[in-house]
Amino acid sequence: MAAASRGQPADLTALGRVSVVGGAGFIGLNLCRRLAQSGLPVTAVDPQVPRPEALDGATVDHQAVLSPDALAGSSVVFHVAGSTEPVSSNVHLREDMAGTVGLTLDVLEASRAAGVKTIVHVSSGGTVYGPDAVTPTPETAPTRPVCAYGISKIAAEGHVQLAERLHGIRGFNLRVANPYGPWQDPRRGQGVVNAFLYRALCDEPIDLWGDGEIVRDFLHVEDVVTAMCDVVRYDGNERIFNIGSGAGTSIAGLIADIESLVGRPVRINRHPGRDADVPCSVLDIDRVSRELDWAPIVNWSDGLADTMNWMKSSLPTGAEST
Amino acid sequence: MAAASRGQPADLTALGRVSVVGGAGFIGLNLCRRLAQSGLPVTAVDPQVPRPEALDGATVDHQAVLSPDALAGSSVVFHVAGSTEPVSSNVHLREDMAGTVGLTLDVLEASRAAGVKTIVHVSSGGTVYGPDAVTPTPETAPTRPVCAYGISKIAAEGHVQLAERLHGIRGFNLRVANPYGPWQDPRRGQGVVNAFLYRALCDEPIDLWGDGEIVRDFLHVEDVVTAMCDVVRYDGNERIFNIGSGAGTSIAGLIADIESLVGRPVRINRHPGRDADVPCSVLDIDRVSRELDWAPIVNWSDGLADTMNWMKSSLPTGAEST
Repeated sequence: MAAASRGQPADLTALGRVSVVGGAGFIGLNLCRRLAQSGLPVTAVDPQVPRPEALDGATVDHQAVLSPDALAGSSVVFHVAGSTEPVSSNVHLREDMAGTVGLTLDVLEASRAAGVKTIVHVSSGGTVYGPDAVTPTPETAPTRPVCAYGISKIAAEGHVQLAERLHGIRGFNLRVANPYGPWQDPRRGQGVVNAFLYRALCDEPIDLWGDGEIVRDFLHVEDVVTAMCDVVRYDGNERIFNIGSGAGTSIAGLIADIESLVGRPVRINRHPGRDADVPCSVLDIDRVSRELDWAPIVNWSDGLADTMNWMKSSLPTGAEST
Repeated sequence: MAAASRGQPADLTALGRVSVVGGAGFIGLNLCRRLAQSGLPVTAVDPQVPRPEALDGATVDHQAVLSPDALAGSSVVFHVAGSTEPVSSNVHLREDMAGTVGLTLDVLEASRAAGVKTIVHVSSGGTVYGPDAVTPTPETAPTRPVCAYGISKIAAEGHVQLAERLHGIRGFNLRVANPYGPWQDPRRGQGVVNAFLYRALCDEPIDLWGDGEIVRDFLHVEDVVTAMCDVVRYDGNERIFNIGSGAGTSIAGLIADIESLVGRPVRINRHPGRDADVPCSVLDIDRVSRELDWAPIVNWSDGLADTMNWMKSSLPTGAEST
């Protein structure tokens, strides 16, 4: 592609309207803001209304129910919706199948009926490969998930690619690492960076599963959003891209960095390791770097501080909070 | 493993009872007969009653509804059930998800509740890899299916492996090539060998999609059944096995062989190629050969003649049949 300068988001103003399915969630809110601020008409499709304070003054249209009408006029659909998460997926197998694969079929069907040209689906870099993969893990590694969420995400990816083959809807699967940053609600139990940081700010103990040696690939949501925008203008043949930071951080390292930022020790409730956690998840980002000229630009300490500042301004952080 | 002599089915008499979910279908009937004839108590779980004439005098218990009670006392469950097939799966995506993934979750849940030790799941060697795979295709090739059936089979495989990790039920996925042979009803539209052979016997035209250059890996059902029995006694670390003939046959070659066997030309209704058909599907069977000491023993011309003889004795083959 004729990429924008590295780190500069692609100019998408020629696209006309775009839709964000899951536009009131963590990644969805950040994406809606970026898209709307760049001058695009944006429809957020989500049962919840996107919080105005997350949009920084930008205007986003809202549709509560996914349908061809809700996507009408959109050339691109960003699919970041999902109601399930890795650990609980191993208990609620059928719900995960419906909430991940079934929902993706809904998005594809409505997109096809609405004449959408491109779909960008956020998949899961942290769960699709499984514990036996080489690290950093390239897109060509075998997919051997150890949680139902990863199994369902692979099936959802397959349906996105099938829709391109059968119906000509260009479809991209972005295997995003562990995103963190503003507007990921740390009280919902998803996203270890935000959850631990918020607990530390509230001077509440964190819940640590395993010995802290688990390694994850933490990526600021602004970098995720940039990759999602960049891929829309890609005209090459790849359809699956790892989106990661390029580096691993242990959970013990995360805790140390949080202690340093917050300025006090973190109290820890220790629990046994969990089946759904792979020991090490770090993505190889050579492909996205080469094909999209994308690279993460938010460094770890800036990103963590930025997230802390958002929490302090937007969430209750008194010691009484839970 | 301490394998039986090549081609000799493993002795399973120490297993106690075994169950075959889908025991009234094509592979299920052949498997039930083999298991029962070897002296094992066998339960066929299937809405249909297994046809007595397919069991050659052997006795098989029948349960119409899958449940922990239906599987009670079984140490091994063979899962060969499925209500969907590749071509139509691309039209009925949700039905395929329910009929393949959902059904596998039902089998795993009932097996876990019944205390089953081992599950042998028949997956799809012809659809999970996709058109870009190297041929012959090893188990380590990327899975890029071009039909919903293949997508669902990969998810079902994942759940079989997850059940082993989470619940200790040993689970094997056999990626079986294109099986043919007695008790595959050629009037149901599945299985090109049986369908074409039956049409030829009835002197009816066959439906050919594409130019006949498509290559498939045809395997007699007796060899499939042997592999299913052999894997139960395997004590190594592999969990996915290709089960194929080791050779490819073009559709044009199949038609020529049928003409030679039947002794007259086959009439052909030509149709355009189908999206769900990969150009060439031939499985690499090195892993199963090495780990299980299994190899196909029914040669192609014997297998085709055997299938014809079964059709002549069991199905109406007058020219008036459809």
